[in-house]
Amino acid sequence: MLRLFITAAMLALEPAAFAADATEANKKAVAEFYDLAINQKNFDAAVKFIGPRYVQHNPNAADGPEGLKAFLAFLRDKFPDYHSDIKRVFADGDYVIVHVHSVPVPGARGNAIIDIFKLENGKIVEHWDVRQEIPEKSANSNTMF
Amino acid sequence: MLRLFITAAMLALEPAAFAADATEANKKAVAEFYDLAINQKNFDAAVKFIGPRYVQHNPNAADGPEGLKAFLAFLRDKFPDYHSDIKRVFADGDYVIVHVHSVPVPGARGNAIIDIFKLENGKIVEHWDVRQEIPEKSANSNTMF
Repeated sequence: MLRLFITAAMLALEPAAFAADATEANKKAVAEFYDLAINQKNFDAAVKFIGPRYVQHNPNAADGPEGLKAFLAFLRDKFPDYHSDIKRVFADGDYVIVHVHSVPVPGARGNAIIDIFKLENGKIVEHWDVRQEIPEKSANSNTMF
Repeated sequence: MLRLFITAAMLALEPAAFAADATEANKKAVAEFYDLAINQKNFDAAVKFIGPRYVQHNPNAADGPEGLKAFLAFLRDKFPDYHSDIKRVFADGDYVIVHVHSVPVPGARGNAIIDIFKLENGKIVEHWDVRQEIPEKSANSNTMF
């Protein structure tokens, strides 16, 4: 009877613990991917975080890993110093969301970006984002971050 | 001994269950707030979801509940049919993130928006967002959602 209760307790606990571990691993994978792709512009290193497909919703990038490769080549060519800082990261189930300050050219005010990544088995399979230029003036003093 | 194990199992389970309930309640609160504020433009109804402060990071809105009130009055005046659909919602700890299609004028392509809300005790206390106009043409066929 005691063994039954312990087993029941373990069964009840394990999925939540497993989910929390997977969520933290997903956050770490996205942060590493972001740095390798956007900051280092190193497709060959970043591609190990991509799954069997890469569904792209950014209207400026073509679908699939090849679209990302072309986008990073564009950044390397036109904006070699393009740099992004992840300000906050969230995860919910298979999704990781990052709030990012991107600066295309050193000294520029840059953009606020929020990206959503979907992961399967720890690999990124889908990407959405929204980008807004940081305006010179704001109606409040809190910054966009 | 058996009672001890049951108590231990309950103690281990309860915080996670409580957190999951709070997370779902936060998602529901943000969805209701969004509809009352942005779609119904009804500040008096929406304000019950706002906490003791409302820190605003949208550069077009003034800080605090009064800033939201003025922004909704602006929408009601200039864009009375402004409508937003929440496409997906995420939650992580005290934060709720929504991915939204907003259409300022019926028939327009509209904007992709991602909002981040921070909640305390079930009330919204801070807001960030990023907005991007949906372009006419895209490099892929997946839409921004």
